[in-house]
Amino acid sequence: MTITSVIMAGGKGERFWPKSRTHLPKQFLNISGNKSMIQQAVARLERLMDISRIFIVTNESYAELISMQIPHLPASNIIIEPIGRNTGPCIALASMIVEQQYPDSTMIVLPSDHIIKDEGEFITILEAATRVAAQQENIVTLGITPTSPETGYGYIKRTEDMWESLSTPVYKVNQFVEKPDLETAKEYVEAGDFYWNSGIFIWKTTTVRRKIQQYMPEIEAVLKEIEPSLGTPWESEEIRQKFVLMPDQSVDYGIMEKADNIYVVPCQLGWDDVGSWTALDRIDNRDDDGNVIRGNILNIDTKNCIIESNDGKLIATLGIEDLIVVDTEDVTLICTKDKAQEVKKLLKELRTQKREQYL
Amino acid sequence: MTITSVIMAGGKGERFWPKSRTHLPKQFLNISGNKSMIQQAVARLERLMDISRIFIVTNESYAELISMQIPHLPASNIIIEPIGRNTGPCIALASMIVEQQYPDSTMIVLPSDHIIKDEGEFITILEAATRVAAQQENIVTLGITPTSPETGYGYIKRTEDMWESLSTPVYKVNQFVEKPDLETAKEYVEAGDFYWNSGIFIWKTTTVRRKIQQYMPEIEAVLKEIEPSLGTPWESEEIRQKFVLMPDQSVDYGIMEKADNIYVVPCQLGWDDVGSWTALDRIDNRDDDGNVIRGNILNIDTKNCIIESNDGKLIATLGIEDLIVVDTEDVTLICTKDKAQEVKKLLKELRTQKREQYL
Repeated sequence: MTITSVIMAGGKGERFWPKSRTHLPKQFLNISGNKSMIQQAVARLERLMDISRIFIVTNESYAELISMQIPHLPASNIIIEPIGRNTGPCIALASMIVEQQYPDSTMIVLPSDHIIKDEGEFITILEAATRVAAQQENIVTLGITPTSPETGYGYIKRTEDMWESLSTPVYKVNQFVEKPDLETAKEYVEAGDFYWNSGIFIWKTTTVRRKIQQYMPEIEAVLKEIEPSLGTPWESEEIRQKFVLMPDQSVDYGIMEKADNIYVVPCQLGWDDVGSWTALDRIDNRDDDGNVIRGNILNIDTKNCIIESNDGKLIATLGIEDLIVVDTEDVTLICTKDKAQEVKKLLKELRTQKREQYL
Repeated sequence: MTITSVIMAGGKGERFWPKSRTHLPKQFLNISGNKSMIQQAVARLERLMDISRIFIVTNESYAELISMQIPHLPASNIIIEPIGRNTGPCIALASMIVEQQYPDSTMIVLPSDHIIKDEGEFITILEAATRVAAQQENIVTLGITPTSPETGYGYIKRTEDMWESLSTPVYKVNQFVEKPDLETAKEYVEAGDFYWNSGIFIWKTTTVRRKIQQYMPEIEAVLKEIEPSLGTPWESEEIRQKFVLMPDQSVDYGIMEKADNIYVVPCQLGWDDVGSWTALDRIDNRDDDGNVIRGNILNIDTKNCIIESNDGKLIATLGIEDLIVVDTEDVTLICTKDKAQEVKKLLKELRTQKREQYL
């Protein structure tokens, strides 16, 4: 069994503004630890496979950043998405290219901007997942055991139907459900057979293609047009011209909510999607006052704040609570924690004002 | 009648940190308008007297700043206090030096870091005040009609005994009282015969000396030692050596609470002591959301904040209320309005940490 992987690295990470910027989005930043998130993602996968089998899908403007941050990655393993078109087109294109180089491989698809602290468990879980995915047309997904009723994630409900004789339980999926409201999320967590959708999928490249043929025919039509150019000098030009013709669809909606033979591997992984600044409350150490502090900070009477100074400037706080303060070279953000999800509003306004230098 | 003036400019303005700094305190900043506070103070007095009669008391490190900001001020009108020793020694020394150059002049003593918006009223009031002060050993003070029960000011209670035939009422003072608690302050405001102590005093230089002889004999003793050196080449060295021997006493406590023949001129003046950042709520225009905004700011869902960007950096705020945000080249302050008076706590901590570069 050949195992390959595709890291999706086209995101903008806007909720991590102003540290995450158009020219340097979240996945290229050291949010936690001393490596960028994409460097951590690659390093984790290298425990399972050679770098030559790790592919990264991104948009053109980040290709150089990837080469700089992961210099040992073969240039041909960087797959350029001409525009962002959701996970459907992204995975379809990447899978076709991987299949061409590693026919019939079992492919792990995963985001570039999540944190996984427990790498040992990650390896164990993926070993089980790839064994299940290598058989028939199985699709395997990692389901994070929920620790709170999050409304920002999709959920996966399992059946009682368990795959036998593996080192970790693998269940047949009952259904994928979209982001719930708080009441529903609470029910899911209490029920005990729901998991957060991690966005990590394991399937053979041939399975991906068959599912696309079956459930996403418009994407399949474009793949067919691009296919003859693969490996030729005009491959990238062909992708540039045709990719845009694919509809904006997610694999969750396009395939996962419809297909059979989907399995979920429950796990913890020390996983975090690092979805907004408040993630630092979970992934970093808080001091006795509940603060997460990085850089040159002086705080008095300050509680439950996230404060980060990135350019050496002293941030002095007095009397504040439940705030996010992020200082960068040209922008300082000051935001209440309960508005952390709405940082995009500031970016929208900056676009309206045509102040793109701050995006 | 010769009128002279002494501007006290030795303050540190710590509550205006981080804009006010050891090397550039509040009185040298443009807090309101396009001139520094000391430039405004000098310009106001020049409507009443020639620059040669305006003296500024300060400490050595600010002498050059004063020369730069007020280039037409004669160098000999800058009086150097070797160390800060409260208003008693400051006024005693300055008054003796002014008396030597302008014998028997009527001297206006005033702070360098207050705002007076109504300059017309200021002139009218001072004309009446100097007329009263020029007679006998009268001491005249300006009393600001209180608009709220402030606990940060001393108060002056007047009698019904009014000076006749002046353009504005001048009352004999009943008593000076120290900063009250809130309940007492409310009673003062309701009573209608209490005024805020503006720290502006008008008296003849000879009156000052007589009151010092009478009520502050320790200061008088030092003045006597310094006096023979005045106008000689060793004057400044003599002051440097002897000034430190004076006790730390205020004129309010040392003279005003004890002397007779003190008068108060009630006035408004558009006066503000600009005591802390929250003063901007009073002296600046607030927008529809109650914010006072200066510089490069983007704010969404932001209410009743004071936000000032001084170095061009974009300050982006989301969801915050009742905060003070001040960005300077090397420090950003974020402080709740109700802690505005406690900014000194941060300075104290910086001193403890020996991080004097931020003071």
